[in-house]
Amino acid sequence: MELFNVLTVQQARSVLAVHLPVWHKEETIPLLQGLNRILAQDITAKEDVPGFHRSTMDGYAVRARDTFGATESLPSYVDVTGEVLMGEEAHGPVGAGQAWAIPTGGMLPPGADAVVMVEYTEELDKRTIGITKPAAPGDNLVRRGEDVSTGAVVLNAKHRLRPQDLGLLAAVGVTEVPVLKPVKVGILSTGNELIAPDQPTSPGRVRDINSYTLYGQVLQAGGSPTLYGIIEDNFESLRQALIGALHENEMVLISGGSSVGTRDVTAKVIETLGNPGLLFHGIAIKPGKPSIGAVVDGKVVFGLPGHPVSAMIVFDLLARPLIESSGDGQPGRSFPLRAAITRNIHSATGRDDFLRVTLRRLEDGTIVADPVLGKSGLISTMVKADGVAHIPLTKEGVEAGELVDVWLF
Amino acid sequence: MELFNVLTVQQARSVLAVHLPVWHKEETIPLLQGLNRILAQDITAKEDVPGFHRSTMDGYAVRARDTFGATESLPSYVDVTGEVLMGEEAHGPVGAGQAWAIPTGGMLPPGADAVVMVEYTEELDKRTIGITKPAAPGDNLVRRGEDVSTGAVVLNAKHRLRPQDLGLLAAVGVTEVPVLKPVKVGILSTGNELIAPDQPTSPGRVRDINSYTLYGQVLQAGGSPTLYGIIEDNFESLRQALIGALHENEMVLISGGSSVGTRDVTAKVIETLGNPGLLFHGIAIKPGKPSIGAVVDGKVVFGLPGHPVSAMIVFDLLARPLIESSGDGQPGRSFPLRAAITRNIHSATGRDDFLRVTLRRLEDGTIVADPVLGKSGLISTMVKADGVAHIPLTKEGVEAGELVDVWLF
Repeated sequence: MELFNVLTVQQARSVLAVHLPVWHKEETIPLLQGLNRILAQDITAKEDVPGFHRSTMDGYAVRARDTFGATESLPSYVDVTGEVLMGEEAHGPVGAGQAWAIPTGGMLPPGADAVVMVEYTEELDKRTIGITKPAAPGDNLVRRGEDVSTGAVVLNAKHRLRPQDLGLLAAVGVTEVPVLKPVKVGILSTGNELIAPDQPTSPGRVRDINSYTLYGQVLQAGGSPTLYGIIEDNFESLRQALIGALHENEMVLISGGSSVGTRDVTAKVIETLGNPGLLFHGIAIKPGKPSIGAVVDGKVVFGLPGHPVSAMIVFDLLARPLIESSGDGQPGRSFPLRAAITRNIHSATGRDDFLRVTLRRLEDGTIVADPVLGKSGLISTMVKADGVAHIPLTKEGVEAGELVDVWLF
Repeated sequence: MELFNVLTVQQARSVLAVHLPVWHKEETIPLLQGLNRILAQDITAKEDVPGFHRSTMDGYAVRARDTFGATESLPSYVDVTGEVLMGEEAHGPVGAGQAWAIPTGGMLPPGADAVVMVEYTEELDKRTIGITKPAAPGDNLVRRGEDVSTGAVVLNAKHRLRPQDLGLLAAVGVTEVPVLKPVKVGILSTGNELIAPDQPTSPGRVRDINSYTLYGQVLQAGGSPTLYGIIEDNFESLRQALIGALHENEMVLISGGSSVGTRDVTAKVIETLGNPGLLFHGIAIKPGKPSIGAVVDGKVVFGLPGHPVSAMIVFDLLARPLIESSGDGQPGRSFPLRAAITRNIHSATGRDDFLRVTLRRLEDGTIVADPVLGKSGLISTMVKADGVAHIPLTKEGVEAGELVDVWLF
């Protein structure tokens, strides 16, 4: 029996980071296909947005100094010498004592430095208005380059594109986007008790759950999953299957094998395959302890527990960040929700605990987390839960009422 | 000038719900395509999971009563009369004074009612073990049906499928899933100042942002978006474009038209099209007030503000819930994060305010929200932000340090 090399989650992440292969394959895709994709390069604006001073109100473009001192009882009178048309260049100039009518979004004509809202004007005749409230230079304007200025990095490499990011890219005229290719992830299940979901059950056999949860998790993380099905529980079958999956993927997840022998087979197979090989065998977390991490000739292999809850949690902690950022270990979901746990929970120090919880909102807006009880082999507990609460390895547990980090599903 | 019919967000949702068309088109898809799809029907388990009592430990299946009183100094001795093989039916029976070896995940043989962990046994010879700690009936077992019991509704209609839900469906043998068809959403932009992102800018013109942010938001909500491009800013062009888009979609979003006349054109066009027509014209929120909602012969139309930030926020509040639940108005994102705002923010009562914020984590774990300043016409403010904080319409504002709900992007 070999010695387990048990690491904390942080140590496991660090050792993976040291040996992490360079995965940065790029491709260029149309902007409309960019949602949730990860930028491969910084995006720099080649022009100002907007490209001109732009009115934010319906009103009149003026020289602010012409309005100084204006009041309702003593308006400043200016001549209306032009009109800005939406979408057209406003040539101006607006001279002293002059104003141009301007719509919201219209271009400020040269000479003018502010917009007076139509509400603060009164029309004397078609050629003259009275202004009843002074404007300061810059009033009611979006300045040229106020949204984006030329040369600014508007989005950083490794950023995952959200709807507003697509909008910003459209604004700066970027219609083809350099993104990272999705990480290819092969998924293998082991365990002689497993049958495929479309097979009838029989005594002693259960259906393969992990292939499907992991497939969903890989997709959610932005990876490209391939299922290799249920692999027979012996060294040679697993070795052949793993070699095949490593050939076609950048990461391979092997889950299960809850029978006695199997737990070590994955590690033994990995040791025959390439360098640096096994990085850890066991993580100081609950659930999920019997997990394996390895890098084999530039590919990552995780051996995940057979229990569906444990496999999901270890995936989220270790595999997801690698897929989401295609290599730099920075997780995509950056802020947990803070909720008050509703019962005392014991936990051992030196171990990160993850507790399935459902959330409830109290009348005062507070969010509380109720632990979902049940063994880590029960997928129904993950289905009931809204997220997992984290009890850090520095703590011996949490007391009812204490705030904990909850990572939502 | 027509009278604005300004509603609160809640009133707008209610009036939409009253007139909401029935959208529940179903389709059946393979399980592996189910991630993020919405169930069309309750899923009921047709069998127990697991289908047999299952060991959670490596050890021995026994009759618990045979272990009562066992201690390290006075073990209970039992005969090992069989071995459970992984994935095979265990016929037993395990009689009084007998034990079967059993692996984790193995089927409990008839006659036995508990498993003793191998750690609490000592092997005398191949046929006899000593048990050093008593077991209670049910110890170290997952009972038949403990994960899922026959006849239980395991997932409800309208539930959006997460990775663990795919796992549960696999467990109960559901490989074809009845889901709602994605809501088809047509997206139109109006505004004579707009040009497409692949066009060069010129003074007075800006690129269309809203088509792209809304396209991303519709996709994110699980809808199927189609862009109809930039529509000329007049009654007849908009009417023809809207009729075309209504024909091909279940929902149409018209954004923009920030020029004076345009703001009313959308409403006027809608009034010529069908029943019940315009439901509200203006919502008591900031930003996003000049928004329109309508139902036209069984299709939903939203007129969204031209400002990108406003359009995104109104989409999230009103359109997203309709797309996500395909009709029942129940939003998909159910829990906001609670964060302490870092400055005093004034807000008018009677109006829901939404504040772009960035989040920071303090040393003690607290999450604080810093307001992102900037006009609602600036898409860069949405790009900087991590989410939006909600100041409810009952409040006059929030004070620095107060906890607010933040909806993460």
